[in-house]
Formats: sequence, C-alpha cells, structure tokens
Amino acid sequence: MGGDFAPRVAIEGIALALDESPDINIVGIGHLQKIAHYLEAYDLTEHPRFSLIHAEEVVEMHEPAIMALRGKKKSSISIAAKLMKQGEIDALFTAGHTGAAVAAHTVITRTLPGVERPAITTLLPGQNGHFILADAGANVECKPHNLAQFAVMSETYSRFMFGIDKPRIGLLSVGGEDSKGNDLTKESFKILEKMQINFIGNVEGNTIFENIADVVVCDGFTGNIVLKTAEGLSKATNKWMKDAFSKNAFRMTGAMLAKNAFRDLKGICDAEEFGGAPLLGINGICLIGHGSSTSKSFLNGIKAASEMLCFGANEKITAKIKQLEPLLKSLR
Amino acid sequence: MGGDFAPRVAIEGIALALDESPDINIVGIGHLQKIAHYLEAYDLTEHPRFSLIHAEEVVEMHEPAIMALRGKKKSSISIAAKLMKQGEIDALFTAGHTGAAVAAHTVITRTLPGVERPAITTLLPGQNGHFILADAGANVECKPHNLAQFAVMSETYSRFMFGIDKPRIGLLSVGGEDSKGNDLTKESFKILEKMQINFIGNVEGNTIFENIADVVVCDGFTGNIVLKTAEGLSKATNKWMKDAFSKNAFRMTGAMLAKNAFRDLKGICDAEEFGGAPLLGINGICLIGHGSSTSKSFLNGIKAASEMLCFGANEKITAKIKQLEPLLKSLR
Repeated sequence: MGGDFAPRVAIEGIALALDESPDINIVGIGHLQKIAHYLEAYDLTEHPRFSLIHAEEVVEMHEPAIMALRGKKKSSISIAAKLMKQGEIDALFTAGHTGAAVAAHTVITRTLPGVERPAITTLLPGQNGHFILADAGANVECKPHNLAQFAVMSETYSRFMFGIDKPRIGLLSVGGEDSKGNDLTKESFKILEKMQINFIGNVEGNTIFENIADVVVCDGFTGNIVLKTAEGLSKATNKWMKDAFSKNAFRMTGAMLAKNAFRDLKGICDAEEFGGAPLLGINGICLIGHGSSTSKSFLNGIKAASEMLCFGANEKITAKIKQLEPLLKSLR
Repeated sequence: MGGDFAPRVAIEGIALALDESPDINIVGIGHLQKIAHYLEAYDLTEHPRFSLIHAEEVVEMHEPAIMALRGKKKSSISIAAKLMKQGEIDALFTAGHTGAAVAAHTVITRTLPGVERPAITTLLPGQNGHFILADAGANVECKPHNLAQFAVMSETYSRFMFGIDKPRIGLLSVGGEDSKGNDLTKESFKILEKMQINFIGNVEGNTIFENIADVVVCDGFTGNIVLKTAEGLSKATNKWMKDAFSKNAFRMTGAMLAKNAFRDLKGICDAEEFGGAPLLGINGICLIGHGSSTSKSFLNGIKAASEMLCFGANEKITAKIKQLEPLLKSLR
C-alpha cells in the first residue's frame, strides 16, 4: 500500500517477480478492495504462489511513525511485522512510511539476539562505485556501542552487496584525524579501532564520495542528513543542468546529441536498481524502498530480499554480534 | 600564508583590492622573506595604503587547530587575532587553517558581548539561489542556546547578503514536523519558536536545496557534514559528467556545443565569488576563504570584509544578542 504509485506498481512488481523466480512464494499485504482490480489485471487472483492478506488500514506518509503501533494496528506494516514475528513470512519489501516500518519491526518483530537497535543501511553512489551508509535514519540518538553494532551489521551487508572480503569501515566525522569529531564519534572511534574489522578511521562528508570506505558508520540523525543532502543536491543539480542546457539553440542541440549522457547520469543515482535499503538487525529481512518505487523497484526489492535470505545475512550478523559482545561488555 | 596558492594569490588579491577600493588600508600578515618577491612583482613595496607585518610561522593544514594558540604563537593567524584584539585591524580575510582561525579568534580576539560561541556562516547554492548555513563547523558540540544565538547572528548576515527584511530561519532536522529530530534540535526548536525571528520550523537536508529557508541553523558537526557532503557530491557529479560526456563522438560534440552550459554549472558552486565564510560572533570581522582561494577570492574577500564593517554587522549582532538574553535566561 506504500509509495507514490501504490498499489499498481507493487502488484506489477509481484507479477514480474513470480515470473522471474520460480522458487519464491509471495504474500501481498494490503486492502483487498483497493487491490482486487490490479490482481485481476496482472492475473494473480489464482496464482499458486501468491496469496493476499487483507489489511484494513495504511500508515499515511504524513502520520507519525508511532501510528503503526498505537493508532493503526490493522495497518499493512503492522500486519507484516506480526506475520514476520510468527514466521509466516521470511522477508518483506515495503515502499511505505520508513519510520512506521522501523517502529513496527523494532517493537513487533524484535531485533536479532544481542542487537540493541536496528539500522537503516543504504547505498550511495561515489566517484568509483557505491558505498554503504548506516544508520541512515532509524535512530536519531545513538550510543557508541550502537555504532559498533551498525559497523558489524553493515560489514556483513557489504559482503553480500559487493562480495568483498575485508570491507573498509569508516566512521563519519568532521576531520580525518583520530582526534576530530564530537563526543559520540570520539567514543565510537575507541571501540571501532579495537574491533575485528577493517577499520580505516574517520572519514568525511567529501571523502566518502571518493569511495574512501566501503561502509560509512554514523548515528541515524547524521546519516539521514547525509542522505537527504545528497538527494536535495542531486535534484538541484538536475534543475541547474536543465536551465543551463536550455538557454539557447547551441546548447539545446548539444544536449540532444549527448542525450544518452544524461540517461547515464540519471542511472548513477537510480534507486530502483538496488531493491531498497535493508533495516538490518531485526529478526527477519526487511527492505525499505523509496517512495517513488516503480514496478522494477518492487521486482528488484523482492529479489534482493530473497537473495539476502539465501546469503544467510541474519545468521552471519548474529554470529558477529555475539563475537563483539565481550569487547562491548569490557567497555561498559 | 594560507591556501593552496599562497602567498602569490594573496598578494595579487591585495593589489587588486587596493586599486579597486581607494578607501581601505591593507595590512598583509606573513613571512617577509617568502613574500618579498611578490610584493615587488605587484608594486606593493612602497604603496601608501599597504603595510606588512612579519609572521615567522604558519599553522599548516595538517596540524591541530590548537597549534595556533600553543605551539605557534608567531603564526600569521595568531598575530592577526592579536592585531584585531588590539584594534590595529578591523577585519581579516584568511584562506588558511579554518580550525586555527576559529581557535585564535575565540581565545585571543574574543567574542562579542553576550556571544558564547562564534559560528562559521557559509553560503550554499539552492535551486533558486543561495542560502546560509550556520554553524558550518566551528562547534562540534552545541547547546540549544548556542543554536539560538547562531540564528540571530546569521539572520543579521542574511540581511547583509540578501538584503531581505524578514529572512526565513529553519532548523535543520530529520523531518519537517515539530516533533522530529534529536534532543538538541527538539530543545532548540522550543527556543527558536519563541524568538523574535521569522522561524519556519524544521527543515531537511533535501528541502534546504529547494530554498525553503534563507538561513539554516544547526550544530557545527551537522553543518560540517552538510557542507562536505555537498562538496563531495559536487565533485563526484563533475566526474560522472566528464565520464558520461566523453563516451563517444556524439556526446563529445554535444558537450562542445554546450560548453558554456558547463561553465554556468561551474559558476553556481563557485566559492571565489562570495568572499569567504564569516566567523560570526567575534569582536571583529573575520572571513574564512576556501583553501583553493584565487586572487579573485582574496579581492572579493577583502571587499566583503570592508562591506560587512560598513554595514555595522557586529553592532547589529550585539544588539540582537542582548535582546535575546532575557528569553535565554528564563529558560535556564
């Protein structure tokens, strides 16, 4: 039910995923009457690997996240979290309210053993490929040991995404030197450098786009600021480009000749390729897609979720979190 | 002595400023032997409105900021701060170590009456013109009343820069609603909404680039992250554009036809036009230029500094800070 083009694109994405992946079963969670038309249109009403669970309500984008827990217990995201808790579903893709997804999964699904806070783990494009940012907004207030856990969780995710053996983990701060940063980053630095990870030290807002690190760790307030700043500047750049290239006939002709270059540029920042940002640390797989998710985003999200499941992401995370425990205990 | 192209561009900028502005006197502060050659080249050795004060040392970019106070008391920035304290100079432009400039001015020059912390106040380009961000990195840890002071100081600066009567002041957070944010922003919100300013509430990393506010207030850690993220993404975008437009002959021809569009795009983010970011709240005018400052940056920086002086920026800030005092006291 979530996202700007729901429910059509969701249903279309489901149909595509069922066609492409013969080994998965899909449960749609949403308002039956609002979806029925699309189920028919995409031939899903009697599909052997598809079922629909009715959800009376939706947490709307403008509502506070807590609605998912208190006001709207029959919302699609609350029901999804309950189904995951009960083991009825293994993985979830949602393009709905991010805060509601975090709240529902944290409280209903619960976190993996030892994990205190889940983290939204997102991909950002750098000069030479993508890097991972965690936490991108699940936790506005963090303690140093939260950042330590984000580091091991997103390290596992980066192995899944990039297939690299020793991902470089950086701590987002305001200077490259060890001593730079605020109280949170300085304390987190002391833990991260003792951990069994490839910690490369502090990284900065500019160097992360030079791919200085594979994983950039920060609190969710800072991560959300980075994510939204990048989003806002990208949008502004598009506008500036449009203005600059439509100023006269020369430039317009040039833009026409190079139109595939613009398509390439758009592709770099294209969210629909990646199948959403995982909420790492919960007892299940949950991928959160962009509000502008297309049917292709849903297709890729569903595929990514099933691949993370096969990769055993949560088993790997649980083992790593357990390994980290003695260090965190010794520092308390 | 600071910046990538010092001291040549500094001396050239001084010569240009002396030519353009017959009513200002300029004091160069730097290492006599290293500068002598350029003074001759630009005919400054006996200029009636130019004098040079010798500084034996320089705080290098890789050194900790505290060097300006402890290790290198004869550095150009320390001497500049002392000259300002003594009233020998009214305003300063530096392209050197930002942290050293903040430290030297905070400790030696001191702040204006009532100002607890100075703020680096910088301009960022939005879709429809520039906006102001404060603090962009002077204070990594802030209290709510610091943010309140940053708001009135940068409000005055925005009147100077944009000539608008009621600048819209936004608080940088992770959601538009009043309730969104971390402890610092939530507490700051409560003060800002009671102040005699045009407070428009929370703004986000994406909406600031849509020019939702004229002034964006935040702590220096967050501000520095925004600034550097924007810088890093701009640089990455340039690289992606270069790659995209040089892929084949069509695109290269297109790029050639539209080459002025690229020049326009470059101009939008060009730091050299603005004459540096003021360190607001100190008892004097200090503008901090980019490390890549050119002679034009120095020229514009010197002009901007003298204009801020004529505008009476500090007198206006002092009055506003005094006006704010009862509210801040009542909240303590």
